[in-house]
Amino acid sequence: MKFDIVVIGSGPGGYVAAIRAAQLGKKVAIVEKAELGGICLNWGCIPTKALLKSAQVFKYFNHAEEFGFNKPSDLTYEFGNIVQRSRGVADTMSKGVQFLMKKNKIEVIKGEAKVRPGKKVMVKGDDGVSNEISADHIIIATGGRSRELPALPQDGKKVIGYREALVLPEQPKSMIVVGSGAIGVEFAHFYHTLGVDVTIVEFLPRIVPVEDEDVSKQLEKSFKKAGIKIMTSSEVTAVDTSGNGVKATIKTAKGEETLEADIVLSAVGVVANIENIGLEDVGIQTERGKIKINDYCQTNVAGYYAIGDVVHGQDLAHLASAQAILCVEKIAGEHVEPIDFNNVPGCTYCSPEIASVGYTEAKAKEAGYEIKVGKFPFSANGKAVANGSKDGFVKVIFDAKYGEFLGCHMVGDGVTEMIAEAVVARKLETTAHELMKSIHPHPTMSEAIMEAVEDAYGHSIHI
Amino acid sequence: MKFDIVVIGSGPGGYVAAIRAAQLGKKVAIVEKAELGGICLNWGCIPTKALLKSAQVFKYFNHAEEFGFNKPSDLTYEFGNIVQRSRGVADTMSKGVQFLMKKNKIEVIKGEAKVRPGKKVMVKGDDGVSNEISADHIIIATGGRSRELPALPQDGKKVIGYREALVLPEQPKSMIVVGSGAIGVEFAHFYHTLGVDVTIVEFLPRIVPVEDEDVSKQLEKSFKKAGIKIMTSSEVTAVDTSGNGVKATIKTAKGEETLEADIVLSAVGVVANIENIGLEDVGIQTERGKIKINDYCQTNVAGYYAIGDVVHGQDLAHLASAQAILCVEKIAGEHVEPIDFNNVPGCTYCSPEIASVGYTEAKAKEAGYEIKVGKFPFSANGKAVANGSKDGFVKVIFDAKYGEFLGCHMVGDGVTEMIAEAVVARKLETTAHELMKSIHPHPTMSEAIMEAVEDAYGHSIHI
Repeated sequence: MKFDIVVIGSGPGGYVAAIRAAQLGKKVAIVEKAELGGICLNWGCIPTKALLKSAQVFKYFNHAEEFGFNKPSDLTYEFGNIVQRSRGVADTMSKGVQFLMKKNKIEVIKGEAKVRPGKKVMVKGDDGVSNEISADHIIIATGGRSRELPALPQDGKKVIGYREALVLPEQPKSMIVVGSGAIGVEFAHFYHTLGVDVTIVEFLPRIVPVEDEDVSKQLEKSFKKAGIKIMTSSEVTAVDTSGNGVKATIKTAKGEETLEADIVLSAVGVVANIENIGLEDVGIQTERGKIKINDYCQTNVAGYYAIGDVVHGQDLAHLASAQAILCVEKIAGEHVEPIDFNNVPGCTYCSPEIASVGYTEAKAKEAGYEIKVGKFPFSANGKAVANGSKDGFVKVIFDAKYGEFLGCHMVGDGVTEMIAEAVVARKLETTAHELMKSIHPHPTMSEAIMEAVEDAYGHSIHI
Repeated sequence: MKFDIVVIGSGPGGYVAAIRAAQLGKKVAIVEKAELGGICLNWGCIPTKALLKSAQVFKYFNHAEEFGFNKPSDLTYEFGNIVQRSRGVADTMSKGVQFLMKKNKIEVIKGEAKVRPGKKVMVKGDDGVSNEISADHIIIATGGRSRELPALPQDGKKVIGYREALVLPEQPKSMIVVGSGAIGVEFAHFYHTLGVDVTIVEFLPRIVPVEDEDVSKQLEKSFKKAGIKIMTSSEVTAVDTSGNGVKATIKTAKGEETLEADIVLSAVGVVANIENIGLEDVGIQTERGKIKINDYCQTNVAGYYAIGDVVHGQDLAHLASAQAILCVEKIAGEHVEPIDFNNVPGCTYCSPEIASVGYTEAKAKEAGYEIKVGKFPFSANGKAVANGSKDGFVKVIFDAKYGEFLGCHMVGDGVTEMIAEAVVARKLETTAHELMKSIHPHPTMSEAIMEAVEDAYGHSIHI
């Protein structure tokens, strides 16, 4: 079989590439060994958001009195029902991708793919039979998987990764979450909200270490207030799973500690799926564990491309999708512009939520900018007060000389829906003045963006 | 006493004007006859949002099973507690304004003000004593009040306005809401969610008639599904309050009907407070019930200005605040640009929420544009599915010739926090291309904006 484009992997990189290619008139095949939609739809972004929605609802139940209601006497649930709802949501989205493949006349091939020289792909089906297909362009979008630390081997039962954390057979009583990136803090929040005793262990001196320092401080404060235990500058050096639960040995600044829990969740990042996919046979270069590409997602071998978690850049679904569109539009001969990796937003859906884009304060200084910083707390925002969501703030960073909008960092209820404004504003090369003079609707939490900008220039109205 | 600037009225127009003036070094007084913060903070935007938050929480209780929980057997509340929470929120915000007045060294004068010739203001205090103050600049920000229809005189008990609707002594069993603008549908949603039998009566052929037609259709569908009764092209011609409740005579397209309810809420708009404030004595012109101003909020008499609901333009708090800043910055000699009234967003906080800015499809056609329309339903958005919030869509309108972003109309969960993106994008004169190439974070409902734009150009990925 011969296609214009073959895509390997059907995550938010792969399936988006396939659809955009089909829209541009290409004959497209997509190879997937598991569920359509990849990790994001089936084991990542989507099912976690479903769990987190349940946690939000449960939190409201537990805080009924704050909203004028009597606390119900019987707040009960089967943990399995919450998981089942999440699986249902994932399933709906995966079926949606199936529908889109059909609608766009994309050939879906089930099986494990290996790239071969001469623009070929070998696909080994579930039946063990291998078939070779060829294409003018081959896009590798095989994604990533949970990183395993040598000191923390995952047995999938008591020491688990995100995949198992999504479908635990029963709710644990206690959990140690190792790593405090987005995955770690989202699960920490989810399980804690349902009543699990959660301890976060972070190697670096602060949680969510890629975020602006002020964001880390706020989240630590909010998490601690909620009752989540946090150990920073700490490292799990060994786990003992021989007993009922897990005994974790933790090296801290003050010495060694032992913690016991039912479950240890390892959330220490993602590694790219670059093994056993034929890269060496074709001669595709990798560097530091990922496939090397240029601005247009082209590898060193003509006709072979790579996008998403399998290449360098943030491991984020929306970046994968953007690369997918860029890669395919370039193949189709459209005018495209390279991705600005510094304008890719990051979102974390714990409570309070985190959303950010661009330079942190520290990075902006490191890059040599003289900066103006503005900050506005949600405690001074009418909508946040009405919502009972006063935790958090918006922080903005501008270049003092030319007024360039260098970065935006938010922590608070619902901020993940507010960051797109900053992305678009930066894309359009806004100045602070234009943001201040864009009338934000009242009462919304988005007003805090405008007021943070005003604060950077010394005239926020409400602080 | 002599001030640089005297502001009459301390709503979101007045108090913002006072603060900005103080920031610019002016000696400022503000006159208020009731609570600091005006209607918005005390009887409008803010306390309604508090009530609506309680309604949201109660809705989650009632839909517990959809999120994996067993429905509690006892969902009880005292209606007064919900009202009390709302009053507490309003009080917090009003105290916040008090704090800001103090911090900015603004003289707060309690009493009723009348403008006088020669840049003077006569203030009659609570003690009946009048004092005259003078200023170089006098800003009138006296706001508006609930419009009363002749056929629907408000007695404040059974036929009420928004003010009484915020503090009903007990929860009614049934309510007729006359008028389906923002105030009408927000209260309809709130009371209906708590179990009140609600009927909306709208004079025009569709509810939320200022919105894009597709938005009206969606809200009608969602409201009817929830169980709110809707009568469009209908008019209350008489009310009889002699019995236990209210008997309303309603003229419909099909003839006359009589409806009974405990309460009739009149929500048929706002009239400006232009009476008895001395306009005639000074010679300040009005037209069609509002004070006439130029682009800089200057009235026809030098030194007298007017902002907010007391002038033409949308009756919206954020517009009043923007006018306040513009007016004061102009007085201070700063470079200012007139407000683009077509880029003032409107938000309605019922469920689903509504947010919009710019031309509706009909208005764009009326204005002679050849247009491209894009639409993306939340049912195809991963975050909306995970949230269980599939109702609604984003609709965008572009000029087909030059790609100008003419309008954005959204209906769905939380869209009021998403509209600022469209405002800023339009302010920065975006093209469709730049919006499509702004990477929106996944999974968020804000992705639907990007996809609606893609849809306008025929290549949305997910539909």
